[in-house]
This record gives sequence, structure tokens and C-alpha cells, in this order.
Amino acid sequence: MIKKIVEDSSSIWTQGTGQYPEVVLSSRIRLARNLAQFPFPLQQTETSSNGVLERVAQAIAKDKSLGFYRLEEIPELQRMVLMEKHLISPEHVQNPENKGLVINKDGSISIMVNEEDHLRIQCFESGLELERLWEKANSLDDQLEESLDYAFDEKYGYLTCCPTNLGTGMRVSVMMHLPALVLTKQAERILSQLSKVGIAVRGIFGEGTETLGNLYQLSNQLTLGQSEKDILLNISEMSKKLVDQELTARNYLLQNAGLKIEDKAKRALGILTNAKIISSREALSLISDLRLGQTLNLIDKIDLRLINELFLLCQPAFLQVLNGSVMDPEERDIKRAEMFKEKLI
Amino acid sequence: MIKKIVEDSSSIWTQGTGQYPEVVLSSRIRLARNLAQFPFPLQQTETSSNGVLERVAQAIAKDKSLGFYRLEEIPELQRMVLMEKHLISPEHVQNPENKGLVINKDGSISIMVNEEDHLRIQCFESGLELERLWEKANSLDDQLEESLDYAFDEKYGYLTCCPTNLGTGMRVSVMMHLPALVLTKQAERILSQLSKVGIAVRGIFGEGTETLGNLYQLSNQLTLGQSEKDILLNISEMSKKLVDQELTARNYLLQNAGLKIEDKAKRALGILTNAKIISSREALSLISDLRLGQTLNLIDKIDLRLINELFLLCQPAFLQVLNGSVMDPEERDIKRAEMFKEKLI
Repeated sequence: MIKKIVEDSSSIWTQGTGQYPEVVLSSRIRLARNLAQFPFPLQQTETSSNGVLERVAQAIAKDKSLGFYRLEEIPELQRMVLMEKHLISPEHVQNPENKGLVINKDGSISIMVNEEDHLRIQCFESGLELERLWEKANSLDDQLEESLDYAFDEKYGYLTCCPTNLGTGMRVSVMMHLPALVLTKQAERILSQLSKVGIAVRGIFGEGTETLGNLYQLSNQLTLGQSEKDILLNISEMSKKLVDQELTARNYLLQNAGLKIEDKAKRALGILTNAKIISSREALSLISDLRLGQTLNLIDKIDLRLINELFLLCQPAFLQVLNGSVMDPEERDIKRAEMFKEKLI
Repeated sequence: MIKKIVEDSSSIWTQGTGQYPEVVLSSRIRLARNLAQFPFPLQQTETSSNGVLERVAQAIAKDKSLGFYRLEEIPELQRMVLMEKHLISPEHVQNPENKGLVINKDGSISIMVNEEDHLRIQCFESGLELERLWEKANSLDDQLEESLDYAFDEKYGYLTCCPTNLGTGMRVSVMMHLPALVLTKQAERILSQLSKVGIAVRGIFGEGTETLGNLYQLSNQLTLGQSEKDILLNISEMSKKLVDQELTARNYLLQNAGLKIEDKAKRALGILTNAKIISSREALSLISDLRLGQTLNLIDKIDLRLINELFLLCQPAFLQVLNGSVMDPEERDIKRAEMFKEKLI
């Protein structure tokens, strides 16, 4: 199953379905859970780690839609692709020892085992679909709790390794493409205000908070002191507001600078289909230009789904999987340019 | 004849023929001459200006290959195209009153009348063809002298309005494309040394000495104290040396950065065939990239002649002639992009 997931150029967040697909790539709920009878991962021994892995494997054994893997079994390049698909974390890629992964066929469920917490239960949906996502995550959580004994405190809620995850243990995040807010120079102001309502904003690729490709990830800062419903409502409302602002800005650009946006999108297409060398950073920026043009109907015959996939296909590990072997950065820049030609011509 | 010349997208310097066409676009000889019995243009009255125009018209009347025009008869936009083709000077465009032009069908001969001097006899050849050019210019000069009485002094030679043209009155210039010397960062050093051997270097488009499109014009600084043969020999030797250095640099780039040069050329093609808005400055730079790629066989199926023509076609006045009406800069940038698509797809 892993090999199939790794080789598939689509991902939940590339599907272009769900609500507001022109702005929202995907929504995610992540629940942090720990098993009461085992020490937290930071204090784990090999024996207790294996204990957690075994308990989790048993707990999901009956569910045929889920597969269980020890991360050491998965080659590094494949782990990196799973990270590029946002199915596992960078920490889970770099230190696979005694770590596990539970995943379903389409990658809409992914549980990291022995990451910062014993369980990081993740559910994904394409577009802005927080209600559906919550039902899914909640039911998966209940299903697991039938056979697992979670560490829970009446006062603090779910106990987690880091106090920032205490309480609900829930992190809701929404992945958005906001090129028009960036072009109209509103992004910085609008996004910085979100921290005042408890929402953190990050880039989705690359180091730290870099926002390459005008892609942003919104998520709740606090997990404690609010119910799951409140957290979901806040993220949902703010996401809808942002979608609205982005669509207004796109419409403004179309009315007032339509030809410039068309020029930008078509230049991006011209470069992507002609260049021989394309860096990862440039690629994300070009795909962003192309995507903005596509959603404003300024580009012919390119499916939104394909454009979303390009964000994934141009990533370093994915290119190496496509190539069938490890490549240095220079080789990847060449392979990346070849990939774009193949996909877009 | 003028209308035909103006509407023709080719020019002597776009033909891609003659010696070293991959580096040298064209060679030009310009002879400054004045008529003995008339005051120099700076001191001219309307009557004496008309006298010069009449004398010149009579002198060339028998030669059916040459046409005579009063510049006021030629609409401003057409005069501007003649300038973009390097057939007349900016001064000749801006102040057409009492000025004249003698020209042949292919624009290889152009005589400006009542410019800074009574006559500016210009001959053009594609590629580096100084000997052939000298024979042509010399014979045209002799032909004119049969019926015109030149101002000539035993000590100073041909008398001219500005002392920098005294003596031979001859300015030889060579138009070159030197992208590889620029890319390998040798251009500035090499070109600045040319002043030490009496050669001036200028850009060929735009204001002052700006070298857009990596196009350079070499010409002799002095007209006095050297024979025509010496001037020609110096320009010829230095041009050949530069051609050699440019070709060496191109070969170096091909060997050491072939893929980067191919990338540059193909990106240029991608932008030229996809963009909706292209400024004049960007256009010249993209054509230069494309031209370098073409001469190194890194680009498929584009004729050098067409690429040379693009340098001309993208000029402001030429675009307006193509369009059939006057356009503001924004409209020209759009028309320019359309023109490239039309020519290159």
C-alpha cells in the first residue's frame, strides 16, 4: 500500500474537490493521544516503544481499511514522499527507529505512532470540509479508544508530551492558496491579525514559516480551554472569511489588472513548458501564478487537479521516486523541468 | 519606395549574411561631405537649404536606383521606422524641415541631406564586409562628386560642420552581438580597452550608450590624421579580434554551461511565445538569449534571419506601422507580445 501511495501523484490535497477548492486545497484534523500505561515517547525505552507499536497494531488489526507499518521498513525516499504529501512529519522521516505509521489507501487517514506523542491521529479532506472531517476523526478516535486506554485527566483533558497540545489534543489546519491577497499586498496584514483570534499561519513547504507558492496553513494555536466544536467553529469562520477576501481580491485583479494576471499565468506556463532547469522555489512560484490564472479562467484546458498535483510532483523526493533513483539538487532541477514539460504539453 | 522599405520587416542588418553573421549584424560606412558654394547647415537659411536639396536631387536624378525625398513628405511614424532601421539619425526624424533623404530600394544606400553636414553618405552591408563596403561608398562618393563641388581643404581634407569629422569625414561602424562576452563578464574590460586604439563603443538602441540586447556598435573615434585605408584596417582587425573572442566565449559556455545556455534560450522562447505584455527592454534581452542559443544550435528550427528581424520588429515605431495606427507604450507592449507569438509559433 505504501508503495502505491508514494507513487501516486495525487493526494487528498491535490483533488480539487470539497468546498472552495479554488482557494482551499485541504483540511486536516490531528489529534494527539497517549497510552496511559506507557511512558511518553520522550521517556521511552526500546521495549516500551515496541509495546506501543504492538498495542496500536492490535487495535487497528480488525479494520481492513487500515495498514500498519514500522517506519524502518519504509525506505527513506518513500518516507520523504510521505512527508511531501503531508502524511507524516519531518521528525518521523529523520528518526524512524521504533516509530510506526497507520494509513489507509487514499491517505485520508494517517496515524503517526511514537512521534512526539504515542498517537498523532490525522484525517484529511479535500477543500474546506471541517464538519465531515470532525465526524471522521471523532469516529476514528472512538474506534481506537475501544481497545486503547488513553491518558486523560479530568482537569487537563488528553495528556500530551508538550503542554501546547493538552486538553482537546486537537490541531485543525486548513491549507490555502492566497496569491491574490499577496499580489494586492493584503496578505501580511490580514494574516498577522489572525494570531489575535488564536490562529497560527505557516507556509506549507520548506523550512520554517516560509510561504512558498503563496500556500499557507492556518491552524488553531490553543488546544486547551476550548471545546473541539469551538475550535472548529473558529477555524471554519476565519477560513471562510479568508476565502472570501481572497476571492474578492482575485475578482479585483481580474477587473483591474486582468491582462497582467493573464500575462503572469501564461509566462509561467511558457517557462514551465520550455525551461531546462527549474529550482524548487521557482517551480512553486510558477505553479502559483498558473493556478491563479486557471481559477480566473485565463488559461486554457488545464485541470485544477493537475495544477495541484504539480505542487507535489515538483518536490525533491517525489522527483527522485519518479526518476527511480537518488539525484543531487542539480539533477533534480533538470528532472523537474522535464516533469513539467511532460505534464503540461 | 519609402513605404515599401518602412513596411519591410527585414533590413540590411537583419539578413544574416556576409562574414561572421553569427556575431556581426552589419557594417556601415558614413562619409560626411559639404557643398563648397553653400553655408554649412548650422548657418543655413531656408533658401540655401533648398539650394542644397535641389543640387543633390539633380546630382542623383540620372541614377534610377536612387530615390530622392524631402523629409517633410515622409510621415513621422515612417521616419521613426527609418531611424529604427538605422537609415536616418534621430535628428533627422525630429526636425525634418528642409531636410532630405536619398535612398535605394534595399536600404543599402542612404544619404541624409542637410543633417549636421550637407551630405551624410551611408552604405550598409550585412556581416563584416568592410572592403566591399569601401568600394561601394567610394564609388558612390565619386559618382556624386561628378556633379557636386565638395568643400575640401588641402591640409584638413573634407571640411565638416563639427571638427570631429574633419579629414576623411569617414565613420566606419560595425554592429555586433556579444552575449557570451557579457555572460562571461569580459565585455566591459575588453570593450573599454578599445578606446585606447581609437575605437568608440556604443549601444545600438535606446538612449545614449545603453547596450540593450547585448548589441554593440564599434566605430572609429578619429577621422583626421589617418587614411581611409588605415581606419578601415583598424576597425577590421579589431572587429575580427572581437568576433574571435566572442566565439571563444560562446564555445566556452557551450562546453561548461551548455545546459544553462539552452535553458536561458528556451525560457526566452517560452516567454516570447506565451506572454501577453512585453516591454521593449525585456524583448531585446530575450531576443539576445534566443539568438545566442540559436547560434550554438541549442534551439530548433528558428532562422537567424528571423531572430535578427525580431530586433527590428519589436521597436516602437515598427510596431505602430504593423498596427496601422499610433499606440501608447502600454498598447505597444501588448502588440509586441502578439507580434512575437505570430512570428515564433
